[in-house]
Amino acid sequence: MDARLLAETIAVAELPLSAARLMGDANYPWLILVPRRPALAEIIDLDADDRAQLMREISRASEALRAVVSCDKLNVAALGNMVRQLHVHVIGRTKSDAAWPKPVWGAAPPKPYPPGAAEALARRLAERLG
Amino acid sequence: MDARLLAETIAVAELPLSAARLMGDANYPWLILVPRRPALAEIIDLDADDRAQLMREISRASEALRAVVSCDKLNVAALGNMVRQLHVHVIGRTKSDAAWPKPVWGAAPPKPYPPGAAEALARRLAERLG
Repeated sequence: MDARLLAETIAVAELPLSAARLMGDANYPWLILVPRRPALAEIIDLDADDRAQLMREISRASEALRAVVSCDKLNVAALGNMVRQLHVHVIGRTKSDAAWPKPVWGAAPPKPYPPGAAEALARRLAERLG
Repeated sequence: MDARLLAETIAVAELPLSAARLMGDANYPWLILVPRRPALAEIIDLDADDRAQLMREISRASEALRAVVSCDKLNVAALGNMVRQLHVHVIGRTKSDAAWPKPVWGAAPPKPYPPGAAEALARRLAERLG
């Protein structure tokens, strides 16, 4: 996995196609799905079966976020302008968050989680993703 | 369809699930897919068949953009913080564009297409999408 993705996130769950990871930014509950296809950059680099599976995993991640935290809106995005390895952001947004209504990227300095809080959230999300 | 989506875009093609429209911003070749499910806000508000179809249409839009314009990266996103009606952005990015490597939303003032140019691009994309 790309070193920056690894460094900025913690493990949540291994789904059939993707590693689900939690972004270490307490401003937003923010999952990242990283398909275990390290040479790929685009959704359309996946074959049709993997694309369908990715959609199922986006849906699972979305449902898990909504079950565990309060969200007014989900943001789902595959950008990859900075980190080229294919990854999908699934972010729970609230109208009181640090960037609302703007997209989160580059909007506010990352905010560290209190000690243990990211791991606790990751465990709760993993239960819903499993 | 949401009035703002309609006002900012022109028609490209009617896909089985979505209207494909071209954003009127010459900074980026930018398609928007609007599923004909006007009451929905989230991808997970779609049923499983529609989600799978949306993934196929995202792929078709991505392939059409790459066939018609030069792109270094595709950006695919369902945000909806400003316009709540479910819609998916499929944007062709280049390293020389007005926002690179940032996301496009809010990054640069929209740039009008020269007269007729948006319609010509929409026709070329429609041929690839059809």
